[in-house]
Amino acid sequence: MVAKPKLRYFDARGTGEPIRYVLEYANIEYEDERISMEDFVNIKPTLPFGSLPVLEINGKVINQSTAICRYFAKRAGLAGGDDFEALQIDAVADSIVDLRIAFTNYCWRTPEAQKPSSYETLKKENIPVYLSQFEKILKENNGHFVNGKLSYADLLFAGTVEYFNNIIKFDITEGFPLVKALVEKVHNIPRIKAWIARRPQTFL
Amino acid sequence: MVAKPKLRYFDARGTGEPIRYVLEYANIEYEDERISMEDFVNIKPTLPFGSLPVLEINGKVINQSTAICRYFAKRAGLAGGDDFEALQIDAVADSIVDLRIAFTNYCWRTPEAQKPSSYETLKKENIPVYLSQFEKILKENNGHFVNGKLSYADLLFAGTVEYFNNIIKFDITEGFPLVKALVEKVHNIPRIKAWIARRPQTFL
Repeated sequence: MVAKPKLRYFDARGTGEPIRYVLEYANIEYEDERISMEDFVNIKPTLPFGSLPVLEINGKVINQSTAICRYFAKRAGLAGGDDFEALQIDAVADSIVDLRIAFTNYCWRTPEAQKPSSYETLKKENIPVYLSQFEKILKENNGHFVNGKLSYADLLFAGTVEYFNNIIKFDITEGFPLVKALVEKVHNIPRIKAWIARRPQTFL
Repeated sequence: MVAKPKLRYFDARGTGEPIRYVLEYANIEYEDERISMEDFVNIKPTLPFGSLPVLEINGKVINQSTAICRYFAKRAGLAGGDDFEALQIDAVADSIVDLRIAFTNYCWRTPEAQKPSSYETLKKENIPVYLSQFEKILKENNGHFVNGKLSYADLLFAGTVEYFNNIIKFDITEGFPLVKALVEKVHNIPRIKAWIARRPQTFL
């Protein structure tokens, strides 16, 4: 018997949630361990690179949210039908992550005094640049990020949009109808919808 | 006849060089277009997400350095023999990218007044945390990042180490003998060695 994979993350959506979306979509049994900030301080020295999420699987501890998403996405047919499709999916996924890094830098790494100007940069530069590009890609690909088909890039975006909106305090998909529609489409997939209905309610 | 893929990047190593390492290793013919800062300003609005590198291939323009590395790595057998090996390679690759982001933030996004303290953080926190973790992984994997076999994660690290060292002004592999040996091993692969000998000499 193969042990269930264990996802270890904070009691939060954050960078763990896209992995949970893929696992739920793929109907893979897993342990969704949620670690308090108190316990995190204790286990941090034992974690690769000192951060979460990690996946415990096959006796190994693996870090990196996007890599973990891609791994389970392959099992679910969400990582591309060939190498060129996989390339396009991976490129969109890493672009979503780039936007997430801009939000994370603003939220956790920007000194208070610079926050107002950083907020403006996010609002007036990063968000319009990324969202208009996402909108364009969705237009060229029939409402999905790649080749008109559901992929883990779609789930990654939908699983991250609450994080974006919580930080910036408005809905970043406003004015980008195809992006908005993609999020709704993903959130209406029965297994994802069921997950959202039953998942722990968390602040972030 | 399939057109040669074209890599468009600055006349620099930066985030383009790991792709060139993989292309050279795989012996794939490609056009290595190098764009001046002047021309970059002109083409920026036409680039996806306004940044370089991009790959022009099969009539599409694809961004994201790591995704492009992985794509060519698959052709060269450097992206894992199965999904679990691919996961481990991808996780190390994204951890190298995380360290690169810390360097890039320091170099390009930190206000001058904060640079001295950011330099100390890089030197005393990021570098020891990442390098000691890389050293540990190499020890557990017989001198490579995954399963004792060459992978694109190895090429990504070796292709980025000059970027790290140029910014921080010392050799970050000092004190990490397995990391140092990995870089030498990659740089002694005949095709990589030949590339380094004939590549354009650039400042960055």
